[in-house]
Amino acid sequence: MTEDAFFADLFRRLPAAGEELVVPPGDDCAAVDLGGGRLLLLAVDQVVGDRHYLASGPQAATPRQVGRKLLARNLSDIAAMGGRPRYCLVALGLPPEGAEAWAAELLAGVVEMGREYGVDMIGGDLAAMPTDQIGSLTILGTVDHRRLCRRRGARPGDLLLATGSFGDAVVSGHHLDFAPRVAEGGWLAEQAGASAMIDVSDGLLLDARRLAVASGVDLVLDLAALPRRRPQTSLAAALTDGEDYELLATVPAERWRQVAGQWPFAGTRLTPIGEVVAGTGKISDAAGNDLLARLPGGYDHLNGSGRR
Amino acid sequence: MTEDAFFADLFRRLPAAGEELVVPPGDDCAAVDLGGGRLLLLAVDQVVGDRHYLASGPQAATPRQVGRKLLARNLSDIAAMGGRPRYCLVALGLPPEGAEAWAAELLAGVVEMGREYGVDMIGGDLAAMPTDQIGSLTILGTVDHRRLCRRRGARPGDLLLATGSFGDAVVSGHHLDFAPRVAEGGWLAEQAGASAMIDVSDGLLLDARRLAVASGVDLVLDLAALPRRRPQTSLAAALTDGEDYELLATVPAERWRQVAGQWPFAGTRLTPIGEVVAGTGKISDAAGNDLLARLPGGYDHLNGSGRR
Repeated sequence: MTEDAFFADLFRRLPAAGEELVVPPGDDCAAVDLGGGRLLLLAVDQVVGDRHYLASGPQAATPRQVGRKLLARNLSDIAAMGGRPRYCLVALGLPPEGAEAWAAELLAGVVEMGREYGVDMIGGDLAAMPTDQIGSLTILGTVDHRRLCRRRGARPGDLLLATGSFGDAVVSGHHLDFAPRVAEGGWLAEQAGASAMIDVSDGLLLDARRLAVASGVDLVLDLAALPRRRPQTSLAAALTDGEDYELLATVPAERWRQVAGQWPFAGTRLTPIGEVVAGTGKISDAAGNDLLARLPGGYDHLNGSGRR
Repeated sequence: MTEDAFFADLFRRLPAAGEELVVPPGDDCAAVDLGGGRLLLLAVDQVVGDRHYLASGPQAATPRQVGRKLLARNLSDIAAMGGRPRYCLVALGLPPEGAEAWAAELLAGVVEMGREYGVDMIGGDLAAMPTDQIGSLTILGTVDHRRLCRRRGARPGDLLLATGSFGDAVVSGHHLDFAPRVAEGGWLAEQAGASAMIDVSDGLLLDARRLAVASGVDLVLDLAALPRRRPQTSLAAALTDGEDYELLATVPAERWRQVAGQWPFAGTRLTPIGEVVAGTGKISDAAGNDLLARLPGGYDHLNGSGRR
């Protein structure tokens, strides 16, 4: 079972939560209405040594890079809802030897990136582990209810837009040094009137499918238009590598010219990479080929069976 | 460095968070004012295999027990602020073999206890670990600002009250099967007008000292009055064993008779175990002996050097 299916099954069997829970688990964040007109966005994510970063050897990530990545992954989830990140809590499990210095440097990375994105760290826990390294971070953000953007909401006739570029995120070092698209996500939700949004962390095809399934539509990709991270990046890598941390958003096609003209982020590409058509979650190329059938991939956290 | 000192040092060096942060890190929970008259309480805690529970062998905890304990530890932190627990997010790191079944059972334990305490699970993450087992849980609660109870606030002349009993929490199995004092904490904050409160998870003396230091007072314990968990529980165990998950609260002495008369929890003892006097954080017995000097103990999560 994939992690998606595992949690979908679990949350389906839960008792219905109160009406305060505006977005139940299964989107990039859950959203809770605690009154006052704003929603609270919540998500949790983890990084594991020698899975999400190399923990030793000459290519090892520094603890500061690990801390930045841990927060940045979560910022990407807030971005995908059009939200503003606010607070985080961090739990670390580390082998006792050198734990204090490692934790201090990792948390310095969280705090450093937190400053850049307006996020205060307001809680932490350290636990001694026998051998492995792990960090988990819970992010809290806020968003106006009218600005909230979800995975569902894409409609036939919308264009599919992508920020940035795709593929080779690990070999290029991008996965340790990316800028989460928080400002871009807020703009897409508010100024572009995005009908749906998701962050791409597990591979473009897999995350595109999540958006398509949640919206009850098919997506037709223009493979020639897909921005690849490097000149040598293969199409397969761009479609299925994980760790891009870009956004996919859908907007009514008639708005594209205006959106493109007003896009204020000179350092971030915004590219139409496909269109939304009626359907049930299929991702195909312009010739109608089912891309998920041809290129199964993306990164499955539970089974660790990704392409990396 | 202890975990307390580690985080105290870290948080002291952080940039000042916004005025929304009513209770900064360092109490049982942080508290954020998001408008609407209620505060949001937040805390994170972890359980590690073969540290907080036995992961294998005939005495191994079941994953359901681990899930219940993971949530219950966090509920105890909400209880200590007088709060009402509402939501949780759970991150698990597990070795791939059997991970799905273990995670499903552990989360069933979280959901089961969540039902009992009104807590909805609204987010989760699973990561494959090389060898170790770990779970982290972030709890969210709410509390009326006027009802909020902190570690600081104890005043000379107050009585020190304790719920339940102390010591031998691991050998008795209490640490896998305790009832977090959520209702009791709410009542002590609201009905008893507690001036300060803390949960006892790292040993009575260590947590009493945290309350005393935060309040800028000394505590004089009546050792003969201290309820011990079992007839054979030693005084040293009652004072320094971890995992009690009871509450310490201070109330003006003149209120004690009324509090005792109205205490509505027939299944939970409430015992005056000492008094608050002017000072700077010392914990002594009635003869003036410094108990922390004589019995260093309590459980230090960072160094794993507790008495267990």
